[in-house]
Amino acid sequence: MTAAQPAGVEIVEVGPRDGLQNESTLLPTATKVELVERAIAAGARRIEAASFVHPRLVPQMADAEAVMAAVPRRDDVAYSGLVLNRKGFDRALDTGLTEVNVVVVATDTFSERNQGVTTEEGLRTWEDVAARAHDAKIRPVATIAVAFGCPFEGAVSGDHVVQLARRIADSGPFELALADTIGVGVPTQVTELLGRVGEATGARLRCHFHNTRNTGYANAFAATTAGVSTLDSSIGGIGGCPFAPNATGNIATEDLEYLLSGMNIRTGLDLDQLSRTGTWIGEQLGKPEVPALLGRAGPFPPK
Amino acid sequence: MTAAQPAGVEIVEVGPRDGLQNESTLLPTATKVELVERAIAAGARRIEAASFVHPRLVPQMADAEAVMAAVPRRDDVAYSGLVLNRKGFDRALDTGLTEVNVVVVATDTFSERNQGVTTEEGLRTWEDVAARAHDAKIRPVATIAVAFGCPFEGAVSGDHVVQLARRIADSGPFELALADTIGVGVPTQVTELLGRVGEATGARLRCHFHNTRNTGYANAFAATTAGVSTLDSSIGGIGGCPFAPNATGNIATEDLEYLLSGMNIRTGLDLDQLSRTGTWIGEQLGKPEVPALLGRAGPFPPK
Repeated sequence: MTAAQPAGVEIVEVGPRDGLQNESTLLPTATKVELVERAIAAGARRIEAASFVHPRLVPQMADAEAVMAAVPRRDDVAYSGLVLNRKGFDRALDTGLTEVNVVVVATDTFSERNQGVTTEEGLRTWEDVAARAHDAKIRPVATIAVAFGCPFEGAVSGDHVVQLARRIADSGPFELALADTIGVGVPTQVTELLGRVGEATGARLRCHFHNTRNTGYANAFAATTAGVSTLDSSIGGIGGCPFAPNATGNIATEDLEYLLSGMNIRTGLDLDQLSRTGTWIGEQLGKPEVPALLGRAGPFPPK
Repeated sequence: MTAAQPAGVEIVEVGPRDGLQNESTLLPTATKVELVERAIAAGARRIEAASFVHPRLVPQMADAEAVMAAVPRRDDVAYSGLVLNRKGFDRALDTGLTEVNVVVVATDTFSERNQGVTTEEGLRTWEDVAARAHDAKIRPVATIAVAFGCPFEGAVSGDHVVQLARRIADSGPFELALADTIGVGVPTQVTELLGRVGEATGARLRCHFHNTRNTGYANAFAATTAGVSTLDSSIGGIGGCPFAPNATGNIATEDLEYLLSGMNIRTGLDLDQLSRTGTWIGEQLGKPEVPALLGRAGPFPPK
């Protein structure tokens, strides 16, 4: 098993977007910008910094343009923004992002509740946005949400996910992500689905795990063992999903970094800085305890 | 990876011992007995029910004899008791246990703080207890504590653990457990150490993980992939270690069961009953939120 682990893993810091958007405490723009700055100081080089959706649906992201105007622009830092339609794409494009992330939801029920469209309509949006992104010379990225299970429809078949992935791959994604939006997947499912989607599409793959049932880190381990070298996580493990009952946060960047560095997988991240930032963002959100455990456990080996 | 998973895993319920002994809220004997009864009702068939140590050191275990006198005795339920010396062994023997678990600590510093003896003295206790257990026709089981790292000495070398395991194996253990007492191990370390200890001793192996840094379930997955078919866990994920700074609970039985059953690994346990019992024991301990996440996440698929 060890032999299959990649030498390095790229972690996409999604705390500023997927983490914050689900927190009910609205943060000032300056705090969001500071989160991005702290992530960069800790070594993050790819950051999902904002969501260009209607502010009524996700109030925390209402200042997406202001955040993007204030974050440091560096050649070595790529920013991603989530978009759900052409209007969102146009807004994102104006901010000078590196990539746009389009979410295609695997089930109609969740798709309609999350973004008001069917899965098929979501696919057409992806196709439209992908073409425009190619024209604009920014990277189109697609994420298949609830790829491992849906809170309303239950099990999601691997066949269905593979079909969606094939369709997405036809529009030339820079990368295709499989998201366990509600944290129900298990490692063997991850291994199998990644193998099938990889074989069917040949796409560069990324995984997005939540730790709702304590399987998130085992799934991340399974994904790296299956050869995936890009993973999403949020500093502090903050987050959830307003449209998924009981969903909890993303896997935490600091705990993921502990796991990966212990296995000699390089990420370029600094564990201590991540851990301090996890505690800090918890304080900003009025949460003395974030889901990340590293800040509580303290350093190892002991100092 | 899937192919290597065992068809079944035996879960040793350690909540009544490792879980409770580290909780500061002292529970009445009847509540401890009820925890055991609920575990059995949920399908547990091997239970570490008590610790026969000095009541001054571990006040929660002062009523070990009373607990053992009251728990249901069934041919299909094996009870284990933790002992650290001959006096503890004699006490355990009098209660009619199925097996005694002797903890040998891999580092001198932790061994002296945890049980007042060096590692070498711990090994001699194991040899003495193992011989007496064989004579008494009960099962001697050894657990190597801090096998993946020590809160005081830091990294613990695999060579050292293999040497300890060889020495333990000479006394004919029914089973040899590797314990990540402070939750610092990572999956590749688990895979490697299990492979080495298995090869060096030929012993039946068990693993004991804590989730202090969110690696516990990934480690459990790695252990099953490495062929280990016996794992410790505690209902609710309750526990910690009074002599290990910041140690948190065992991996939770309900979350482990979710992980294993999702991978089609049979344990004989009932997820709903485990989850309800996890919530219940949290209430008894005055903890509205136990470390187990399943009770909060709710059932999947949705009912």
